[in-house]
Amino acid sequence: MKLWGGRFSKPASKIAEEFTSSLSFDRRLYREDIAGSIAHVRMLAKTGIIPEEDAQLIENGLVEIKQEIESDTFPWRIEFEDLHLNIEKRLHEIVGPVAGKLHTARSRNDQIALDEHMFVLAACDHLKQAVTALQRSIVEVSDRHRDAIMPGYTHMQRAQPTLFAHHMLAYFFMLERDYGRFCDCSKRADAMPLGAGALAGTTFPIDPRVVADELGFDELYSNSMDAVSDRDHLIETVFCCAVTSMHLSRLAEELILWSTTEFGFVEMDDAYSTGSSIMPQKKNPDVLELIRGKTGRVYGSLMSLLTLMKGTPLAYNSDMQEDKERLFDAVDTVGACLALMAAVVSTMKVNTHKMLLAAKNDFSCATDVADYLAARGMPFRKAHEITGRLVAKCIEEAKYLHELSIEDYKQASELFESDVFDLIKVETSVARRNSHGGTGPLRTAEQLQVAAEIVRGRKHD
Amino acid sequence: MKLWGGRFSKPASKIAEEFTSSLSFDRRLYREDIAGSIAHVRMLAKTGIIPEEDAQLIENGLVEIKQEIESDTFPWRIEFEDLHLNIEKRLHEIVGPVAGKLHTARSRNDQIALDEHMFVLAACDHLKQAVTALQRSIVEVSDRHRDAIMPGYTHMQRAQPTLFAHHMLAYFFMLERDYGRFCDCSKRADAMPLGAGALAGTTFPIDPRVVADELGFDELYSNSMDAVSDRDHLIETVFCCAVTSMHLSRLAEELILWSTTEFGFVEMDDAYSTGSSIMPQKKNPDVLELIRGKTGRVYGSLMSLLTLMKGTPLAYNSDMQEDKERLFDAVDTVGACLALMAAVVSTMKVNTHKMLLAAKNDFSCATDVADYLAARGMPFRKAHEITGRLVAKCIEEAKYLHELSIEDYKQASELFESDVFDLIKVETSVARRNSHGGTGPLRTAEQLQVAAEIVRGRKHD
Amino acid sequence: MKLWGGRFSKPASKIAEEFTSSLSFDRRLYREDIAGSIAHVRMLAKTGIIPEEDAQLIENGLVEIKQEIESDTFPWRIEFEDLHLNIEKRLHEIVGPVAGKLHTARSRNDQIALDEHMFVLAACDHLKQAVTALQRSIVEVSDRHRDAIMPGYTHMQRAQPTLFAHHMLAYFFMLERDYGRFCDCSKRADAMPLGAGALAGTTFPIDPRVVADELGFDELYSNSMDAVSDRDHLIETVFCCAVTSMHLSRLAEELILWSTTEFGFVEMDDAYSTGSSIMPQKKNPDVLELIRGKTGRVYGSLMSLLTLMKGTPLAYNSDMQEDKERLFDAVDTVGACLALMAAVVSTMKVNTHKMLLAAKNDFSCATDVADYLAARGMPFRKAHEITGRLVAKCIEEAKYLHELSIEDYKQASELFESDVFDLIKVETSVARRNSHGGTGPLRTAEQLQVAAEIVRGRKHD
Amino acid sequence: MKLWGGRFSKPASKIAEEFTSSLSFDRRLYREDIAGSIAHVRMLAKTGIIPEEDAQLIENGLVEIKQEIESDTFPWRIEFEDLHLNIEKRLHEIVGPVAGKLHTARSRNDQIALDEHMFVLAACDHLKQAVTALQRSIVEVSDRHRDAIMPGYTHMQRAQPTLFAHHMLAYFFMLERDYGRFCDCSKRADAMPLGAGALAGTTFPIDPRVVADELGFDELYSNSMDAVSDRDHLIETVFCCAVTSMHLSRLAEELILWSTTEFGFVEMDDAYSTGSSIMPQKKNPDVLELIRGKTGRVYGSLMSLLTLMKGTPLAYNSDMQEDKERLFDAVDTVGACLALMAAVVSTMKVNTHKMLLAAKNDFSCATDVADYLAARGMPFRKAHEITGRLVAKCIEEAKYLHELSIEDYKQASELFESDVFDLIKVETSVARRNSHGGTGPLRTAEQLQVAAEIVRGRKHD
Repeated sequence: MKLWGGRFSKPASKIAEEFTSSLSFDRRLYREDIAGSIAHVRMLAKTGIIPEEDAQLIENGLVEIKQEIESDTFPWRIEFEDLHLNIEKRLHEIVGPVAGKLHTARSRNDQIALDEHMFVLAACDHLKQAVTALQRSIVEVSDRHRDAIMPGYTHMQRAQPTLFAHHMLAYFFMLERDYGRFCDCSKRADAMPLGAGALAGTTFPIDPRVVADELGFDELYSNSMDAVSDRDHLIETVFCCAVTSMHLSRLAEELILWSTTEFGFVEMDDAYSTGSSIMPQKKNPDVLELIRGKTGRVYGSLMSLLTLMKGTPLAYNSDMQEDKERLFDAVDTVGACLALMAAVVSTMKVNTHKMLLAAKNDFSCATDVADYLAARGMPFRKAHEITGRLVAKCIEEAKYLHELSIEDYKQASELFESDVFDLIKVETSVARRNSHGGTGPLRTAEQLQVAAEIVRGRKHD
Repeated sequence: MKLWGGRFSKPASKIAEEFTSSLSFDRRLYREDIAGSIAHVRMLAKTGIIPEEDAQLIENGLVEIKQEIESDTFPWRIEFEDLHLNIEKRLHEIVGPVAGKLHTARSRNDQIALDEHMFVLAACDHLKQAVTALQRSIVEVSDRHRDAIMPGYTHMQRAQPTLFAHHMLAYFFMLERDYGRFCDCSKRADAMPLGAGALAGTTFPIDPRVVADELGFDELYSNSMDAVSDRDHLIETVFCCAVTSMHLSRLAEELILWSTTEFGFVEMDDAYSTGSSIMPQKKNPDVLELIRGKTGRVYGSLMSLLTLMKGTPLAYNSDMQEDKERLFDAVDTVGACLALMAAVVSTMKVNTHKMLLAAKNDFSCATDVADYLAARGMPFRKAHEITGRLVAKCIEEAKYLHELSIEDYKQASELFESDVFDLIKVETSVARRNSHGGTGPLRTAEQLQVAAEIVRGRKHD
Repeated sequence: MKLWGGRFSKPASKIAEEFTSSLSFDRRLYREDIAGSIAHVRMLAKTGIIPEEDAQLIENGLVEIKQEIESDTFPWRIEFEDLHLNIEKRLHEIVGPVAGKLHTARSRNDQIALDEHMFVLAACDHLKQAVTALQRSIVEVSDRHRDAIMPGYTHMQRAQPTLFAHHMLAYFFMLERDYGRFCDCSKRADAMPLGAGALAGTTFPIDPRVVADELGFDELYSNSMDAVSDRDHLIETVFCCAVTSMHLSRLAEELILWSTTEFGFVEMDDAYSTGSSIMPQKKNPDVLELIRGKTGRVYGSLMSLLTLMKGTPLAYNSDMQEDKERLFDAVDTVGACLALMAAVVSTMKVNTHKMLLAAKNDFSCATDVADYLAARGMPFRKAHEITGRLVAKCIEEAKYLHELSIEDYKQASELFESDVFDLIKVETSVARRNSHGGTGPLRTAEQLQVAAEIVRGRKHD
Repeated sequence: MKLWGGRFSKPASKIAEEFTSSLSFDRRLYREDIAGSIAHVRMLAKTGIIPEEDAQLIENGLVEIKQEIESDTFPWRIEFEDLHLNIEKRLHEIVGPVAGKLHTARSRNDQIALDEHMFVLAACDHLKQAVTALQRSIVEVSDRHRDAIMPGYTHMQRAQPTLFAHHMLAYFFMLERDYGRFCDCSKRADAMPLGAGALAGTTFPIDPRVVADELGFDELYSNSMDAVSDRDHLIETVFCCAVTSMHLSRLAEELILWSTTEFGFVEMDDAYSTGSSIMPQKKNPDVLELIRGKTGRVYGSLMSLLTLMKGTPLAYNSDMQEDKERLFDAVDTVGACLALMAAVVSTMKVNTHKMLLAAKNDFSCATDVADYLAARGMPFRKAHEITGRLVAKCIEEAKYLHELSIEDYKQASELFESDVFDLIKVETSVARRNSHGGTGPLRTAEQLQVAAEIVRGRKHD
């Protein structure tokens, strides 16, 4: 049941047929394939390559096939190796021999390339919306807790007090780059390959611009061999997915950490947690762990596609058939992770009291103490040294900096006055970090406004 | 429909339930899961933890469930998140409340670990057989063409003439290392984790040795936290798959190359080739290209698993749920590739005449010319230089070395006598490479015998 | 010799000091670091944070340090853990205590971020030029052989005749996407991080816009935690490198293939080949093999950086110190590969005669025969079948399609007339593939013109 | 200054020469190369291929060269492309023309293969020792704190109380598998390739068994083409490194986590921590972060080597030159990480008091409460439900389970008696997990003894 035969004296072996069949996964592209075929057949009519009435018959048949597939009545047949052949055979059954004309001036090499381009463009759009949805959740949770103070960390050690909203907005701006990457990827994927034929173009007087306009492409491929052998747009899509999933893994890691008894900053909603079949007290951040774990899956898909294309000569090679499953998997995985993360962030309980307590019962205002001395003329390196010794003293005596007496301070340096106690309040510390992009309430409010406007501007997504 | 609830005030969200469900892929482990449960319940009876008659009831129920699954009458229910829970719920329906006793002294953490160990051990066995099958094909095709001479290549440039059998046997010995790796991997995977509980062991007086004996394990885990958090054996299996697929990609590349019009050394059987829907003359080595392409898939799975486990704290984390799909995919892919490659190698047509012609019409005996001079006392570097010039002269005059006259040789060096023409016969050149492991017919025959004995020794595989 | 101490009671261990030192690789960033410091100190003066004359002293000191480094007289000291500290200490020696003021309102976290941004921007520019240089070579070699016909391949089997220039230009357009990717990457890397401090901003009234303008940045980071924890631009740069190296591996593979005795389409210039110490006839395409092999190196670097960042909490973690070596390696590797490939392509000898012969002595016009029948009203599938049988007959009789008689054709189908012999000329076949992007001479000339204009437009690179 | 020339009409280009030179990294193999050459020359003498006195001269020359290299007086010359050629040229200078005889019956293809095998064997030995050293640290720290109780975690949520020693020993047994993998890798790397020549063997009557015995190899390669094209042992070594580094990343992650203010279970020694140039209170677990980050580097090297070898035809290709740097890097990185981790573990302060407090002030004995009810005849699922509700009540009232009254318990179930308070002591909970491999003190002591014996058995490492 193949499209060739004259040159062959033996049929394909059964196991080879199964091994080489792509039907199990490429049928997912039926929407793209049918839309592409309709655009192609309209062009064939418009350029006079086939009669208008034939084109109409074929288009009707394709519409019918689409309905069959969507109502699950389409007779998928494994013995026809791929999606294209399944549709072609069925078209023959529906409209008769005129079906053959659909394949004028087209090869499966440029046909599958078109399907993949259309899939990639739709996938990028979908992922842009999913990114925006998570950004929206972040804006909301930040806005809801815009005054909450928490310890800021470097090296997972408390560093300086920050606003919770400021911390969350860091993820907003990471995701904004992801959004931009998906846009750029779409821009490059916007090149219409049909007309490239098997590799060298076609002898028919086609007009690929017509097909491009029908399908909403801005650009055409400049070179037919490039058109059928290019898989850059798939790889770039999966790369964009990989970076997004890296960002998600960082957020997941932090939320898991903050959900521990030890941190206790947030609590996942019951709806996004699981328990244990054995341990009745357990409430596990299962969804977040899976999001973190799925990073590996997406990285692996990227590595698969890059390895796949390494060293393959022009133009088409069957190796490329392997491109689809990993693309689909990456797009589905990251789409789902973004949606779940948005739900998790929207519904989690933020324990602002515990955060504040953690920020207070700590040494994260030590920088401010050193700055105090520096502002009074002491070289910063010396101020740093003296403050370090004050911290060591506190640790020894199990105190915090605000629990030392003014005498303790004076003993360390005569420059200290009692106004130092104002400075080492976490509220003061946060408020004074007022530089562009800083954690100060004004600056965080600014960022929040920028972020809110960005998501508002995408309300039709 | 969860195994917890007392601590929760809200049910799981629908999308979270779907996202966290593993049923779609872990149901593949039903055989291992049921065998493991039967071994566990027998142990519980043997140690007196539960009554013998309860154990018998449970075992009967599990046997019935296995039959249901295999006759496709088992009621899989998506709302029970995984395989274990589906079986547990069904067991309740079949045997009533006594079903609950099966889970005495067991957590899903050690249960899934056991299932995975059993899967890995079976997979390694299967892959060892698949490796052996391809080795057998290689032995056969080598034996069938044991005298065929072909050009040997380095840098894809003709280097020295070799026996085709010698070249093919290089792959035999690569595969032999693959076989050894799967053995070592099995050895390390042979550690029985049941009894580790959630992470810390159990308070019941279990006897894990009984379970191990029932299931054919030699070793027990020494530490329960290691037992539930270890995924090394999966990663090692996928690594072994990756190296095997790298070997297959090299063989595939060579056979694709040899199938080109330009080389023409082999021709794939029609049963393992495909044609073109457009180009009537095409016969494409589709199966081999796919085998080459699938290398990326297996590499990607390895990277996924390594990334997955990076930095995960002890003991169990849900990230680990991601381990199964990539393991299954790697094992299935490499198993299929080995089987197809065995079929391709067995059925391909070897054009020994074209190979011989290529070996003759070339300069690959140039080393022998230089050796000739060296053997007559000329320093090798000088002999190399002189021979290089003879080759340059040939290229200029479009001749081969055996087409030069004895005068041409003498002009290059007085040391040449007419016996040089014997030496530059490819047959002589091959025959003289008679060192251990070399391409000389005697040495190749030796290798062939070693190889044949190895595969014979595995006849029960 | 550390920047801290008050809180510590013990010095760092020697091996820990070596393990954590980054000096061996981050000293490469001295240019960026010094330019960044000068811009910072000018801003400090402009905003009145430090006196103008102090700023001038510091700037003079930094200029002196740069000269020391470039004249190799700078005293690098391993005991100062990194580049920043080496420069700071030296600045103290040169300008005295005022040096301390340079570090006002700055942390090493935002300082290194700035250095890396500047490096990435320069690297992208450099790689864009290297891409353009290779594109230029491709345009030249295509133009030089604009009429050369060769077999076009799919599945490494001869498919349809094409123009050599058309084939080479496919790589031009691949590289054009690479160029675009480096541009987009630069665009996203263009965000100035200084002022973020350790993570939360600074209490000084800085003006980061001044720094940005000094250094040529268009954008500022919106969020200070994002500014110090973002490594997206590095990862994106390495990804762009990975795709470029994938493209280079494809071109390298083809040129290696074409350099075999069997293909013989091109010959590498002696200057880019190596010989063998043993085999006097060998001429190996060493450079191309290395380019192909280095793909693995670049892929590995991408995987390293992605793995590195997986699951790291905000804001800065020392893991990130590992980002530099892999970035440098990827940029250097791809830069060198592009330059070498340009040289190889420019200097290689193209055997147009051998290409033409290969295109003629083949069946790659079989599609045209089938098209002939289809154009005369026969359904394409039947035409394909009949042509397939003609090819099979040729193979049996060791002939090509143009060597069959008109009787042979007529026996296959009555539709054949003697004008079929015109069609199966490779020249005709190529000329008729005249669709947009196709291999027809007019179309290829069009592409060549587009390509030539693109590289001309970049003449100032 | 090349080893060829007769066939070439032009010298190599300067940039090509630099690009293809491997001297900067392969000089590291001088020890292996010289030892291999000495073994080879002794064999040549023993088999009568060269005179004994020539062999002696050459050996003396090689010994001298080794001394030159080690005293840094060897004249490395970049214009000789690699290590082999540098040594060969120098040997000529030292011993004269007889130097040429060293290269009898040897090609650089089998020579570099030998060097790499020797390197891999030594590297595996070194890494086995480094693994053992870390295991020793783990045994010591476990033994020092053998009674310390801490919370055991799953999903980073407190699960059941465990012994700190039990937790640490999980890593001991992971490392034990790493040790085993390096052993198996060595076993497979133990195959002597010399005698394979360029690819096809040699015409000289060599005895590779002699060389193998000299160098301590047990096995010879069976097939010469396999011998020169095999890089499995390198890849396997890097894979073993990758798994070890994954294990190290897990331990690093836990220790970093435990070093947070929030956990506070351990404190890194000052000697293995760093401070901040800005924040005087900071003490960062820098070494551990770097160890965690370097995982990416090792994974990347594995991916590089796998990609490198994908689809490369037999026998030798220059791509393979890329194998060395990534191997060296992986071996060095993992060796250093193991050594640093051993030092960190040995010197860290374990806050057993904080651990115990965390275990007590928690619900991790909830399983024991449920078990209590189950042991009194309640179905486990119901017992789980009731305990879950008790935990929910505690959370509401900000209490722990041991702070509820007996009335609270009785209200939940009549089955509770006051002996429940004994059970929910963490000490009891730990003690009762007494199954094989469990956390019970007896079981942990058993594991500790096994572990101590293992490291004692390797005292000569």
